[in-house]
Amino acid sequence: MEILITNDDGIYAEGIFALAEALKKVGNVTVVAPDTQRSAVGHAITITDPLRVVTARRNGKFFGYAASGTPADCVKLGIKAIMKKKPDLVVSGINLGGNQAYNILYSGTVSGATEGALLGIPSMAVSLDTFVNPDFRGSAAFAAKLAKLMKTKALPHGTLLNVNLPNLPARRIKGVRVTTQSLTCFNDWFDKRTDPHGNTYYWMTGDYKPKDSDKKSDLNALRAGYISVTPIHFDLTNYAFFGELEKWGL
Amino acid sequence: MEILITNDDGIYAEGIFALAEALKKVGNVTVVAPDTQRSAVGHAITITDPLRVVTARRNGKFFGYAASGTPADCVKLGIKAIMKKKPDLVVSGINLGGNQAYNILYSGTVSGATEGALLGIPSMAVSLDTFVNPDFRGSAAFAAKLAKLMKTKALPHGTLLNVNLPNLPARRIKGVRVTTQSLTCFNDWFDKRTDPHGNTYYWMTGDYKPKDSDKKSDLNALRAGYISVTPIHFDLTNYAFFGELEKWGL
Repeated sequence: MEILITNDDGIYAEGIFALAEALKKVGNVTVVAPDTQRSAVGHAITITDPLRVVTARRNGKFFGYAASGTPADCVKLGIKAIMKKKPDLVVSGINLGGNQAYNILYSGTVSGATEGALLGIPSMAVSLDTFVNPDFRGSAAFAAKLAKLMKTKALPHGTLLNVNLPNLPARRIKGVRVTTQSLTCFNDWFDKRTDPHGNTYYWMTGDYKPKDSDKKSDLNALRAGYISVTPIHFDLTNYAFFGELEKWGL
Repeated sequence: MEILITNDDGIYAEGIFALAEALKKVGNVTVVAPDTQRSAVGHAITITDPLRVVTARRNGKFFGYAASGTPADCVKLGIKAIMKKKPDLVVSGINLGGNQAYNILYSGTVSGATEGALLGIPSMAVSLDTFVNPDFRGSAAFAAKLAKLMKTKALPHGTLLNVNLPNLPARRIKGVRVTTQSLTCFNDWFDKRTDPHGNTYYWMTGDYKPKDSDKKSDLNALRAGYISVTPIHFDLTNYAFFGELEKWGL
């Protein structure tokens, strides 16, 4: 099994190392990841600048390819310029921080897996729902288990698995739930400041404490201590509203 | 009617100027747009750098606010830091180049309108399907007509209108179709080169000539000379596959 791995925290992040080590037990691993952090890049691609690729070492050994691009760039590069064979699986992560609800849209991690899915390859994004004291071992083990399962199962074209794990010891994780994407988002605002030269600038900041009435959502699964696995796709047409819009008389 | 305008080609692009001029006849216009081109940024936001905002003049007059961020940043800034009242409508465009099919995912233009929709504001993205000899007049007039209609109609929360226009004189446009998002994408590849210092780099390039069997798609409407209006949302769960995934025994 040929596995392409990427992330958005950069090739030197802790999460991608744990993921690669775990997936080496499942197949041949090729890592193509951003050379630095590319968080919140969404599904950006690099078309107006050239992309550079260098090899990256970790613990004194060859680890993978570091690219001057986004996660979506890295997956395209991996499949179309670096790997000799088309991968059987694309895995993006393990992200430091959850990627649930509408936050998926901003996520470079999910975007890497999305690119795989659009190219017709079984793909998943894996995120650990914490920013502090991450323990990637459980997430890496779950990703390996799911990778093995994906060998034997089929996903519809364009659909990927968005996996989020609570940052809990294995014995405290309550199980795995197939979930929906919560339709909640960050509550963000701007912190307006003045620099030492008298110029105004803004920091985007926010919090994320929504109520979510959807009991099946990724958000509620994580809050209840479950691993969430959401099948997502990018067929964005709102079919339910289609007929109504036809009546507008455009 | 308070209207917030953004784009991804930058505040000095031709398309946003045509759009703003047309929408000034419909309501009070506030322009907040990237200070330079931000094409193919997807739904990126800027959280690790400060955002700067300066005023921009065109034709010797105040035109709007130029921000050092992405279209999604600009819409957030407009609504949460710049405008005194919440807008009644967000319009992103007019983009130079179509934003149809899976290409929507890479589009900064669509992302600006998406941000508006997630914040609960009626929103649309407007793109002109050409890269050469654009004539924005027809698109601007159609955007103004649609803006007036949106005053009286309601969109579901989180749903926006993705509008694409063929680059044809008004008399040759065949009409308006409510469309689906085509499930086709760019065929891209990498052009591998060596710089004068002996280092390898890659240019992403590609073409877009897919066959699309979906007769109702945005792609086929444009090809047939129609304006396409697609209702899109970001409820990404593949509900049709949900039950199947539950049977995987995760």
